[in-house]
Amino acid sequence: MQAAKKVGKQTIKFTQPPCIISTHTVVGPKEGRGPLGKFFDYTIPDNLWGEQSFEKCEQKMLQEALEQALQKANLSPQQVDYLLAGDLLNQIICANYTARNLGIPFLGLYGACSTMAEALILGAMLIDGGYANYVLGGASSHYDTAERQYRYPTEQGVQRPPTAQWTVTGAGGFLLAHPSLAPAGPGLKVTFATLGRVIDMAIADVNNMGAAMAPAAVDTIIQHFKDTGRSPVDYQLIITGDLGSLGKTLCLNMLEKAGYDVEKIYTDCGVLIYDPSQDTHCGGSGCGCSAVVMAAYVFRRMQEGAYRRVLFAGTGALMSPTSVWQGETIPGIAHAVAIEFF
Amino acid sequence: MQAAKKVGKQTIKFTQPPCIISTHTVVGPKEGRGPLGKFFDYTIPDNLWGEQSFEKCEQKMLQEALEQALQKANLSPQQVDYLLAGDLLNQIICANYTARNLGIPFLGLYGACSTMAEALILGAMLIDGGYANYVLGGASSHYDTAERQYRYPTEQGVQRPPTAQWTVTGAGGFLLAHPSLAPAGPGLKVTFATLGRVIDMAIADVNNMGAAMAPAAVDTIIQHFKDTGRSPVDYQLIITGDLGSLGKTLCLNMLEKAGYDVEKIYTDCGVLIYDPSQDTHCGGSGCGCSAVVMAAYVFRRMQEGAYRRVLFAGTGALMSPTSVWQGETIPGIAHAVAIEFF
Repeated sequence: MQAAKKVGKQTIKFTQPPCIISTHTVVGPKEGRGPLGKFFDYTIPDNLWGEQSFEKCEQKMLQEALEQALQKANLSPQQVDYLLAGDLLNQIICANYTARNLGIPFLGLYGACSTMAEALILGAMLIDGGYANYVLGGASSHYDTAERQYRYPTEQGVQRPPTAQWTVTGAGGFLLAHPSLAPAGPGLKVTFATLGRVIDMAIADVNNMGAAMAPAAVDTIIQHFKDTGRSPVDYQLIITGDLGSLGKTLCLNMLEKAGYDVEKIYTDCGVLIYDPSQDTHCGGSGCGCSAVVMAAYVFRRMQEGAYRRVLFAGTGALMSPTSVWQGETIPGIAHAVAIEFF
Repeated sequence: MQAAKKVGKQTIKFTQPPCIISTHTVVGPKEGRGPLGKFFDYTIPDNLWGEQSFEKCEQKMLQEALEQALQKANLSPQQVDYLLAGDLLNQIICANYTARNLGIPFLGLYGACSTMAEALILGAMLIDGGYANYVLGGASSHYDTAERQYRYPTEQGVQRPPTAQWTVTGAGGFLLAHPSLAPAGPGLKVTFATLGRVIDMAIADVNNMGAAMAPAAVDTIIQHFKDTGRSPVDYQLIITGDLGSLGKTLCLNMLEKAGYDVEKIYTDCGVLIYDPSQDTHCGGSGCGCSAVVMAAYVFRRMQEGAYRRVLFAGTGALMSPTSVWQGETIPGIAHAVAIEFF
């Protein structure tokens, strides 16, 4: 026996697809100067944005993204059933303090850089399952908070190896609604979700997370095709978030080896967000990376007609500094979600 | 318009209640010597259990709890739709590495000590919503890992203030099943869930978390009564997890002030798990506390006929050392879940 709304082994099919009715993004100055700068809703003037610490700045960014996403839909926090959010900081403090300030019933998530995908999928399940009309979701990261927690304080000026990615300073918020409450006409809909397993290919270098996460992305994307009977030709865009340039190449090679020709439609959020001249080495990473690239750029391009169907595979590296110091390798995860405009 | 399965503002009603078909608990030596010792499935011989670090010990405990919960139900990991789990450690590493070793599609949660309740509620929603037949859930904590992460390494021998609670060394796992797949006859069923808001009464003392969390417990319990039309007489037991003795008294006083007479039926997981002679000051805390007290003791007592209906309010303190150092107060959350035996 198979659960009613599952197709194949790991995939959910939403027969009444929940709608993404609004989004909002707030990014740091470096991201604002990058190739997607004009798509973001707001660029903060510096990495503190008037706050006394980088952590407080990140929390303010996440709160602003969620409040503005609500405002764009003309809703108050009281009208939202649940808030699903997370970030990279220990004990997900940005999400917790934002939940305190908004007062919405809150479910805290930790999926590292896959958090935006996890929130989108769980939010869609809660609406489609009959538990909610509106779900607010969000994720954030901040270069200076992540570097000092995971590696070195940025003030120290440690040289970064060529495989490193640059943690995005950014927060993305989205509002999901039951289809009966969405504005009339075509819109962004969540149609399938493939939940990922944790895959660990024994990479132990915290400066090479793209390589650590790529196998998980491949595992989930292939499972999505198997479960749904779809193939690359069914999508105009397949986007991982965020493997960076090295991880993207690995992912592409592994997918091609497995017989999936995705070269022309595949890219990665971490590759899109910075220009090579911005000296980020392998590109962007962090919960905020796929959150802002999807919410600001990909969804906008879908609304403009560039893509009808997108497969977004949010990827996360699930180690901690403690686990790495204790000799553990880096486990990766990827959750895929099909978003369609109709 | 109200979402189909919601009653009142924050509560979900499961009309086809998902069943808790098996549980397993693994605890530390101190917990094994406590008043609930005989209820726990396995007591480890020392706080390392043959591992090289306390963190690796905690991960092994969580994995053992989940694997044994599966084994008791004669299921393999491949038959389980999702694993929902979390712990107190930065980036929830115990849950992540356990998910890697089990290979079940994984959704990582962070709700501090409310994680067990969060997993139970989300698991029930995923089954009742038609997305899963079986969901495995779990949570863990460990005295030595939590103390060195949140306060001081235990080797340092810092004196604990009288308001402090003792982080439970323990891991609890549970397996939820669709009612059509549960064994015939009466069983443990999840009937209602009330999701909590984050409440912060401006307590900033990390050694007084019971006081920080009690207002959130009160807020959620009262909301549960309002949403469902139930009152304390509908329950044989209301149990918070885990406010400790000081927080329990505060919670009781606040509920009585609000007109709810719960004195005879109310207790707290953190109060039950240790004997006052064990010198834990205010009692137990940590994700593992409510996980093992509920899974080993309360569920067993329900099966023995002591309680037909239990309201479990899992509480969590959502700060981090960083947020406290930066002058933030401690936000609390509580999620309530009604469990009935029929």
